[in-house]
Amino acid sequence: MDDIEAIKQLKARYCRLLDTKDWSGMRHVFADDVVIDATGSGGSRITGGDTFIDYLSTQLADYLTVHHCHTPEITLDAATTATGIWAMEDRVRFADGRELTGFGHYHETYEKADGTWRIKSSALTRLRMDITEPTAGPQH
Amino acid sequence: MDDIEAIKQLKARYCRLLDTKDWSGMRHVFADDVVIDATGSGGSRITGGDTFIDYLSTQLADYLTVHHCHTPEITLDAATTATGIWAMEDRVRFADGRELTGFGHYHETYEKADGTWRIKSSALTRLRMDITEPTAGPQH
Amino acid sequence: MDDIEAIKQLKARYCRLLDTKDWSGMRHVFADDVVIDATGSGGSRITGGDTFIDYLSTQLADYLTVHHCHTPEITLDAATTATGIWAMEDRVRFADGRELTGFGHYHETYEKADGTWRIKSSALTRLRMDITEPTAGPQH
Repeated sequence: MDDIEAIKQLKARYCRLLDTKDWSGMRHVFADDVVIDATGSGGSRITGGDTFIDYLSTQLADYLTVHHCHTPEITLDAATTATGIWAMEDRVRFADGRELTGFGHYHETYEKADGTWRIKSSALTRLRMDITEPTAGPQH
Repeated sequence: MDDIEAIKQLKARYCRLLDTKDWSGMRHVFADDVVIDATGSGGSRITGGDTFIDYLSTQLADYLTVHHCHTPEITLDAATTATGIWAMEDRVRFADGRELTGFGHYHETYEKADGTWRIKSSALTRLRMDITEPTAGPQH
Repeated sequence: MDDIEAIKQLKARYCRLLDTKDWSGMRHVFADDVVIDATGSGGSRITGGDTFIDYLSTQLADYLTVHHCHTPEITLDAATTATGIWAMEDRVRFADGRELTGFGHYHETYEKADGTWRIKSSALTRLRMDITEPTAGPQH
């Protein structure tokens, strides 16, 4: 598998392990010193793989999430570093019944160590975020 | 075209031929002894390419469907066998006006015979399935 | 990067530059004599890269758009020509508050000149287009 395909599958695991809440598997997706910047999406800036997994596993415990990523633009900068942009859509059903449907882009860097690509940094920018109240429609 | 790309295009044809109801084309996507397991999505377990096409062409005749697949994790196990996981979203507009919007993952195996990759098995697991009644909103 | 990956990233830039309204960057996505056929989606047929950028930048100035493309079927026909089909979903929030959610397929050709792939023609067919009125739901 070439490096571009390996990075695509890395982000695929990010989405799948996040939505299936596989936190121990999810930890391996990130470099130890990963920087996650959600300030462009109303969130915070978190440094460190362990810290981010602690945050996610607490924050999302009662939420149902769906994260879909599209049309990657991966650029290999050197043998062990790369950058990528992904279009994204996410759905979050909060514990109080509200729903988020959001759209934007992940702007990321990747690092290869011990033969494995990991996410080194990820910043989320938004095109649109819609919040719907629990009473919005007859859903079953 | 390498094997991973060929399998991605196989699943692309699955989605397109399904939503455009091209049943004769769709038959070629599947191995003769394909096993389709929709029990994780409220459906049934069907064996055989011909049987599954008969089922689909009858079941979906009056439904408008959209199936989108994302971020494949394809692994080549041997020269002629592979596994894959796809994130998915589907929309179904039923004949009575109800609408399904669903999210989940396809867990699949593939087999190469006569130089062509085909779907050997496919099981659908769900993150979320929403059903909306016809009266939910003013749609034109 | 191989030709199929280069064409995938070309379409990725199309989506991203369109939704971020980067019209000068968007111009480079298209061949000078590109043919855009939106007649299958209630639109018109436009010839020429400059003309199409003029059209887009005027037409979409007050609209918020999201375009996501999925599961490409890219076929290299010769060293410098290729065809492709993409599943697509788009969201448009019009200036009057109405919303379009649409689904369909882009049917495209590509041309490589001066080492760069560009979109030579693009025709959009639709599976489904939903228009929602501003009063449809409590959105914030």
